[in-house]
Amino acid sequence: MSGAVVLLSGGLDSSTLLHAVARDLGAKGVVALTLCYGQKHAREIACAAAQARAAGVSRHRIADVAVLGALVAGASALTDPAVPVPDLAGLSAAQREQPSTYVPHRNLVFLSLAAAFAEAQGMHDVYYGAQRQDAYGYWDCTPAFADRLNAVLALNRREPVRVHAPFAELSKRDIVRLGLDLGVPYAETWSCYRGGDRPCGACPACVERGAAFRSLGVPDPLAA
Amino acid sequence: MSGAVVLLSGGLDSSTLLHAVARDLGAKGVVALTLCYGQKHAREIACAAAQARAAGVSRHRIADVAVLGALVAGASALTDPAVPVPDLAGLSAAQREQPSTYVPHRNLVFLSLAAAFAEAQGMHDVYYGAQRQDAYGYWDCTPAFADRLNAVLALNRREPVRVHAPFAELSKRDIVRLGLDLGVPYAETWSCYRGGDRPCGACPACVERGAAFRSLGVPDPLAA
Repeated sequence: MSGAVVLLSGGLDSSTLLHAVARDLGAKGVVALTLCYGQKHAREIACAAAQARAAGVSRHRIADVAVLGALVAGASALTDPAVPVPDLAGLSAAQREQPSTYVPHRNLVFLSLAAAFAEAQGMHDVYYGAQRQDAYGYWDCTPAFADRLNAVLALNRREPVRVHAPFAELSKRDIVRLGLDLGVPYAETWSCYRGGDRPCGACPACVERGAAFRSLGVPDPLAA
Repeated sequence: MSGAVVLLSGGLDSSTLLHAVARDLGAKGVVALTLCYGQKHAREIACAAAQARAAGVSRHRIADVAVLGALVAGASALTDPAVPVPDLAGLSAAQREQPSTYVPHRNLVFLSLAAAFAEAQGMHDVYYGAQRQDAYGYWDCTPAFADRLNAVLALNRREPVRVHAPFAELSKRDIVRLGLDLGVPYAETWSCYRGGDRPCGACPACVERGAAFRSLGVPDPLAA
């Protein structure tokens, strides 16, 4: 085991993933990587730092990918103040397939950079927190996406980097249940797509998160 | 035809590609994209600007991807002053498969960003100047790489972006012959991996370039 890179946004999924990978591989073999790209909810980044400390990983690298936000200007509600974040209730079935909170090719950019970072350090495993997303979704969070990306990476003439998405078939509820077992400090995660002081409770990320905690009969410490 | 993005480094291959795509699709439908990542041969970027002007494309976007150089620090001769650029003659057969001038996952990072840029503008075609590379090579310049990456991109729930590598089966000689037909101003391209005032003549890029011009019986205007 030469170590693994975990993409850590500071949201609920990637924070749980970080703790799960640290448990499975040993925290000292894990490097967390947070990529900032001009997202509205920069508060996630402070949460990412808190999670990296809580998980005890060997290193937390925060890197600026503002170029992504600049290149997709106007195309996503997560990067452009002029594009409103929708309420989940307001999304049609078609919009739930690819809502305006989709950032074009973000996960491919992030995983490419994470793979570059891993390879440069002699590491061969990259984890990211794609999950099943019950009510809305993104093509770059599916199991097929990770599988096909691994087919690209396998062409490397050095030992290839592999992308792992161990939550890709889990629901948000499954993830929260796992995280509660792992003792993830969920008060220091951020899910809301809007940039307020408190979660809005209505955007897709808030609705999913709230439903997951409720279905487990556990209060969300962030909503308290 | 909604337009195409061409990755333009300012080297011989991508400059020729830009002119070829501008001829085939019409220059007004072409946007050139130059990504700077801390490469030693920054002189390429001025050449890229000159080529974009010469080809008459609608727009030339230059974007800073310094994050790539930072994340792979120490891993490539193209980004780290402490890693020497090798002479081609000094490379073993194994090193020619993946020389120290390889930048981990650079083309995947670049094509991901180019795809994001294209999609945000409603464009669906991205071109890059991968070529056959007679004497040395990189796994991320092969036809299989483009094919497998297109299999990833095809999962997009909007109209997918497609990556095109029309030179992937061409030799450097084929490319120079095409470029001479197209009138590419080769005096304003830069191939040398070393950062000198004049091409070194010995690094892999210089040797390949020199051999291509010589085999066509044409002087390289840059070597004059």
